[in-house]
Amino acid sequence: TIFSAPVRACLLLVVVSVWVQQVDGVWPLPQQLDQSADRNSLSPQRFSFTYGRDSAAQTGCSVLDAAFKRYFSIIFPDFTKGSVSVKTRGCDGYPDEDSDESYNLSVSEGQAVLRSVTVWGALRGLESFSQLVYQDDYGSYFINKTEIVDFPRFAFRGLLLDTSRHYLPLHAILKTLDAMAYSKFNVFHWHIVDDPSFPYQSRTFPDLSNKGAFHPFTHVYTQSDVMRVIEHARMRGIRVIPEFDSPGHTQSWGKGQPNLLTPCYKGDVPSGSFGPVDPTVDTTYKFMESLLKEVKFVFPDSYVHLGGDEVSFACWQSNPNVRTFMEKMGFGKDFTKLESFYMERTSIVWQDVFDYHERIPQDTVLEIWKGETYQAELSRMTKAGHRVLLSAPWYINHISYGQDWRNSYAVQPQNFSGVWSKQKKLVIGGEVAMWGEYVDATNLNPRLWPRACAAAERLWSDEEKTLNADLAFPRLEKFRCELLRRGIQAEPLFVGHCKHEYDGL
Amino acid sequence: TIFSAPVRACLLLVVVSVWVQQVDGVWPLPQQLDQSADRNSLSPQRFSFTYGRDSAAQTGCSVLDAAFKRYFSIIFPDFTKGSVSVKTRGCDGYPDEDSDESYNLSVSEGQAVLRSVTVWGALRGLESFSQLVYQDDYGSYFINKTEIVDFPRFAFRGLLLDTSRHYLPLHAILKTLDAMAYSKFNVFHWHIVDDPSFPYQSRTFPDLSNKGAFHPFTHVYTQSDVMRVIEHARMRGIRVIPEFDSPGHTQSWGKGQPNLLTPCYKGDVPSGSFGPVDPTVDTTYKFMESLLKEVKFVFPDSYVHLGGDEVSFACWQSNPNVRTFMEKMGFGKDFTKLESFYMERTSIVWQDVFDYHERIPQDTVLEIWKGETYQAELSRMTKAGHRVLLSAPWYINHISYGQDWRNSYAVQPQNFSGVWSKQKKLVIGGEVAMWGEYVDATNLNPRLWPRACAAAERLWSDEEKTLNADLAFPRLEKFRCELLRRGIQAEPLFVGHCKHEYDGL
Repeated sequence: TIFSAPVRACLLLVVVSVWVQQVDGVWPLPQQLDQSADRNSLSPQRFSFTYGRDSAAQTGCSVLDAAFKRYFSIIFPDFTKGSVSVKTRGCDGYPDEDSDESYNLSVSEGQAVLRSVTVWGALRGLESFSQLVYQDDYGSYFINKTEIVDFPRFAFRGLLLDTSRHYLPLHAILKTLDAMAYSKFNVFHWHIVDDPSFPYQSRTFPDLSNKGAFHPFTHVYTQSDVMRVIEHARMRGIRVIPEFDSPGHTQSWGKGQPNLLTPCYKGDVPSGSFGPVDPTVDTTYKFMESLLKEVKFVFPDSYVHLGGDEVSFACWQSNPNVRTFMEKMGFGKDFTKLESFYMERTSIVWQDVFDYHERIPQDTVLEIWKGETYQAELSRMTKAGHRVLLSAPWYINHISYGQDWRNSYAVQPQNFSGVWSKQKKLVIGGEVAMWGEYVDATNLNPRLWPRACAAAERLWSDEEKTLNADLAFPRLEKFRCELLRRGIQAEPLFVGHCKHEYDGL
Repeated sequence: TIFSAPVRACLLLVVVSVWVQQVDGVWPLPQQLDQSADRNSLSPQRFSFTYGRDSAAQTGCSVLDAAFKRYFSIIFPDFTKGSVSVKTRGCDGYPDEDSDESYNLSVSEGQAVLRSVTVWGALRGLESFSQLVYQDDYGSYFINKTEIVDFPRFAFRGLLLDTSRHYLPLHAILKTLDAMAYSKFNVFHWHIVDDPSFPYQSRTFPDLSNKGAFHPFTHVYTQSDVMRVIEHARMRGIRVIPEFDSPGHTQSWGKGQPNLLTPCYKGDVPSGSFGPVDPTVDTTYKFMESLLKEVKFVFPDSYVHLGGDEVSFACWQSNPNVRTFMEKMGFGKDFTKLESFYMERTSIVWQDVFDYHERIPQDTVLEIWKGETYQAELSRMTKAGHRVLLSAPWYINHISYGQDWRNSYAVQPQNFSGVWSKQKKLVIGGEVAMWGEYVDATNLNPRLWPRACAAAERLWSDEEKTLNADLAFPRLEKFRCELLRRGIQAEPLFVGHCKHEYDGL
């Protein structure tokens, strides 16, 4: 945490109480929201954001200076000021798993006061504030008298994009980060490489993308691209956790790194195809160590996702060197032991790794992705003392006809058999996953939004206040129109219209 | 048909036969395509389209002059010429159900010759020609020696957009027409009004959109908008068939036209809600006559779609005046007779109308939309001598995860029990329907393309040559990349990439 003293941003409003109008709330729903029918006029000419006198962050705080500018344009699109250059000074840290995102917002006559412990909390409060402002039919801006006490239910509220099965242009990723901030997501899980392509341009091993990307120039993320993503995310209070999935899902790695993958055998001779990373040779570990050293240097987050899912053992089994190694290590014929040997040091891994249960450090976070039995897995893994992330019910690349956001909304991440104090608190959050088999920049946005908003509310808000999808529907409809107004190509929930439609251009 | 003499366009090519390369074909597959491995160089500087000496269409033909310009930019995007204004003179007709769309294309050394009976056939040939040109890795353009004899399997190859459940901005409709022409669709079925909104701005009854549209200014189609759509379609050889669905699906009509809808009753008193159009009063018929007179004036096509589907009889039944009328007419309690009385004079109607079987003129086209039993319906309706359009298996608003285009591709519109000479030829074509419950401009394009291309090939090409979806897959993948290159936001079929990705902007 950067700030020990509370950050406070005072928002000065010109107030004219006029007449009563019911307005809808904030998505995701704040923990406490008291709203009165008294509404106050806002004048874009006289409105300003200012730092509180006792605030530890003052002008020059990169995160909040930029956020003030951003939210001013969102709130008053007709009054966008000219370009103001924000100088980076102070507030230069990154959000992390311990960041306090709580905030209090008090809107009364003449002013609004936003109090938070950290700049990250202030960002969440600014988002809520921007959703409270509305226009009447004459274009005048209003905000109702409001008291909000708010904090996230879970510290980890992630969204996964897959840039290996299809390449996503930088702009599509940045736009997704914008929309994530609107829904108060705070982790971008970048599934950056996989079997089909290796678009990450490594400093240490440039051949990985030179030979493993779909195209070495048009379909890669340069170091500068990666830095832009990380900074764009930081300014919105979003962590970037890269995933370098191994030892499976590494076909594209093999193209630029000879002798990394296990040669598969047909009988006594190599078949010409390759399996997972070869875990029996020193060169593999040296390569992985160098690559991860670079990754940990480039990506500031303390977490790295190391995958470990869906390892096919057939190729390992076919290879005589692997079999010899297994014997030497005393693994017998149990290839799960070989994988757990390989996966020894990690941070987040997919649930598969737990199934091989030896040697997983207690602080490894397990991510649950197998859909059928996720409650049982939650129970079993937290019982073993592991922190878990829930993703299985939020694989929203799986589409179906109609309002499938209701299924996402019905998910209850802590509804499993287990002891509250010991087990349920080990659920640190969840992740919406948009796998890339059928998704690229042509359909990413409408498939993500507003469908991902359902999980965003489940992960942020009080479950008891937000289990009824019918009550959520009109709020989500309104929020979807707001996303459109902000330029996010969010698809409709059902028949109807928005004041600001997407123009199809 | 405008042209009695054949239209011919000679395409002069600079030819340099270099080396052999296999290229893929044209989507939808031409009836006959013979391609040699001999490839010819094309020079954008020296390439030109010219009219054949014996062509009935010459410079000044609006349709082809514009098409030459359009296809030049498509074929050579790096060499797009400055804006050339095309003067409208000759070729000013509209495509219709009898238009001959056949063409022959012969590409040999030095020139390509395109022969067709009509300008509409010439448009289809230009599309095929544009798909045959390709670039090598150095950017040089090539086309292989090719002979194509081509004609559509069905005369009616439609696509339905629904602009009532969600408003689609003009630009989204025009873009859809572009993509339709690329796939050789030739009918835009404009389901322009329905229960939720009435965006058609009528000259005769302006209150219909003033009160029935989502918004009287931002969510309407003016007369000028409609004319732009019709002209944009005409230039691409596409007919525009508007649907004014009644007597059901008319809730929005009632807002601007008092006394049109049937007041529903609860016991002896009106309940305040309204049912279908009231078919028992003269004012209804006078109104419909005036409205349709306008519609037939505004839309040049000889067909109008009059809907007639999903009429709920409960409201009619509740209304004492309707019951009295039924008695007077001797309909007893059979409300289907009341609907068939109302639907007497029509052109295309949904299949429901056939179920009331009295008084349908023999030349009425029936459109089949009920999915479960469409083969049986095809058999039954053609046996009764009606021409039919198949839409049921092509409701592609219904999405599912994965490659659902394969289902569309598997449809066999003439595979039903019936006599070939008498019944099967009564299948005049089919329609892809994109209903609007969950679709607006945010997700229209990626849901339509390339999924609709499967039906496009089924409706154009020889079924025996195109039933295998696995063989079609690489061709469709290539065509999808071509759509991207032309600016159509077509979603991916599976893992992979295109040379020209959608940039996400």
